[in-house]
Amino acid sequence: MPEQSKSHVTVLGLGRMGAPIASAFLDAGHPVTVWNRTAAKADTLVARGAIRATTTAEAVEAGPLVIAPLLDHAAVRQALGPTAALLQGRTVVNLANSTPDHARDLAAWAAGHGADYLDGAMMALPETVATPEGFFLYSGSQRAFTRYRRELDVMAPAHYFGTDPGSAEIHDLALLGTGYAALTGFLHAAAVLDPVGTAPEAFAPLAARWLHGMAEFLPELAREAGESAYAGGVSTVDLNRAGVDSLIQLSLTSGIATDVHEPLKALLDKRSADGHGQDSFSSVFELLRPRDTAEHGTQSAGRPGDGHR
Amino acid sequence: MPEQSKSHVTVLGLGRMGAPIASAFLDAGHPVTVWNRTAAKADTLVARGAIRATTTAEAVEAGPLVIAPLLDHAAVRQALGPTAALLQGRTVVNLANSTPDHARDLAAWAAGHGADYLDGAMMALPETVATPEGFFLYSGSQRAFTRYRRELDVMAPAHYFGTDPGSAEIHDLALLGTGYAALTGFLHAAAVLDPVGTAPEAFAPLAARWLHGMAEFLPELAREAGESAYAGGVSTVDLNRAGVDSLIQLSLTSGIATDVHEPLKALLDKRSADGHGQDSFSSVFELLRPRDTAEHGTQSAGRPGDGHR
Repeated sequence: MPEQSKSHVTVLGLGRMGAPIASAFLDAGHPVTVWNRTAAKADTLVARGAIRATTTAEAVEAGPLVIAPLLDHAAVRQALGPTAALLQGRTVVNLANSTPDHARDLAAWAAGHGADYLDGAMMALPETVATPEGFFLYSGSQRAFTRYRRELDVMAPAHYFGTDPGSAEIHDLALLGTGYAALTGFLHAAAVLDPVGTAPEAFAPLAARWLHGMAEFLPELAREAGESAYAGGVSTVDLNRAGVDSLIQLSLTSGIATDVHEPLKALLDKRSADGHGQDSFSSVFELLRPRDTAEHGTQSAGRPGDGHR
Repeated sequence: MPEQSKSHVTVLGLGRMGAPIASAFLDAGHPVTVWNRTAAKADTLVARGAIRATTTAEAVEAGPLVIAPLLDHAAVRQALGPTAALLQGRTVVNLANSTPDHARDLAAWAAGHGADYLDGAMMALPETVATPEGFFLYSGSQRAFTRYRRELDVMAPAHYFGTDPGSAEIHDLALLGTGYAALTGFLHAAAVLDPVGTAPEAFAPLAARWLHGMAEFLPELAREAGESAYAGGVSTVDLNRAGVDSLIQLSLTSGIATDVHEPLKALLDKRSADGHGQDSFSSVFELLRPRDTAEHGTQSAGRPGDGHR
């Protein structure tokens, strides 16, 4: 029996991410049609067997699956606009940087033209965009995610977060937020060490080890927060309150802003004042999560997508 | 020729950290004298060859190197107080949780009684206190650090940060601050995902991957900050400003506090307003570091220990 033929893939946009994505589909044996605003960027891929489309309409017409790793929402709207009449029955995977609302708008627009829509956020670098070192967050059409799972798996590993097209971008922002907080903490710490003569470069390897350790600690923290199970932990609110107090005191003595750690201090102080000083550190989550869901516990979390409709 | 004999080590305090430390010295073939407030905690170690001291004075008299992994400053003062007259010519390694000022006070007190003083901060768990997975920060007597480097290396790897006895604790706080910021960022992100129905446990593995990635990124960030070399980076102030704006907008829409990311937003906004929008993200360091050193660049950072005398 002949080997089952690979499905056709259209890639719109051959930038830093789009080019290696198209390349990965060629490597995996898929027929690939490519389009790029500057057509010459496709030359290498065409030499390897990709079909060059000169318009986005031509590219979309070439097959059922359209993957768009374009720069931003405006670029996607511009590229897809002229293809509206051709979208019926096709699937659009939007990999552009986007806000949750832009993703929802585009999903509604695509649905209006009979297309399935998947929004994807690429947590990857150009060199990991099609390797297990990167990962992609998806949300939107469950049907599209299931139907094209094999094709999506040519790129970095896929994680699906429900039918709300904005959900992938929300998860993207949640990850960015975790990272921003860590980097801000590092730069603040480097500032604290400036007056004692330790250069950021000397501190970085130790801070990296420490951050790796924090990363390993997240599942335990998450379990406590997810189950609202805060009793009996070694690292209590009061213990960490003392630590954060010392840290803020040091910032003050060193003439460095304290606002990076003030929010945590306020959370720990409040937990302690409310009689939860012996609870686990993670219990500050109760003060961070939205009030209405916090009151009802985990039951009210709802199904994926409910919260933002 | 006979093997060179191992030096005698006294361990004051056999708590969660002290017990495995004393055990590691026994494993390494050192004669070990131990003292603990509750004497029975020494039984297992004594059965393995440790000498039990019934008073701290007896323990200190037993040898030249006294390592004190006690709980806190008060416990160290209480343990060492009665040994003042015996400290001449000995070395004290204080591994208790301490503030920079407490470490300096104790160093002055020890010097007054003719002892060398090293302050150590244990960045380790009981199971990594004597393995390469943990690490210790030291500051204080350079002579003591050099003389007893071989003994210190029986414990987790040693990093020395200059003669200011408070410096190890300052570096400890800098690491804690980096970690606190990361954990706060994670819990905030988990709160953002609460309304869309993603549980903290489901988010944790992705966030851990992301944090590992951030840790890998620190050396580059540190190099830019250390050299004040912010031009030509891919991740600019304005790009990240847009990201942080989206994140804060999402927090607002979700009814979640924004104060975790407000300090970063303010820093990025200020850099942008000052005309540095195309500089690298890391350039917010210029606004975090103390004003007087920032004005003079790296030259004014001084020697280790200068800043806090």
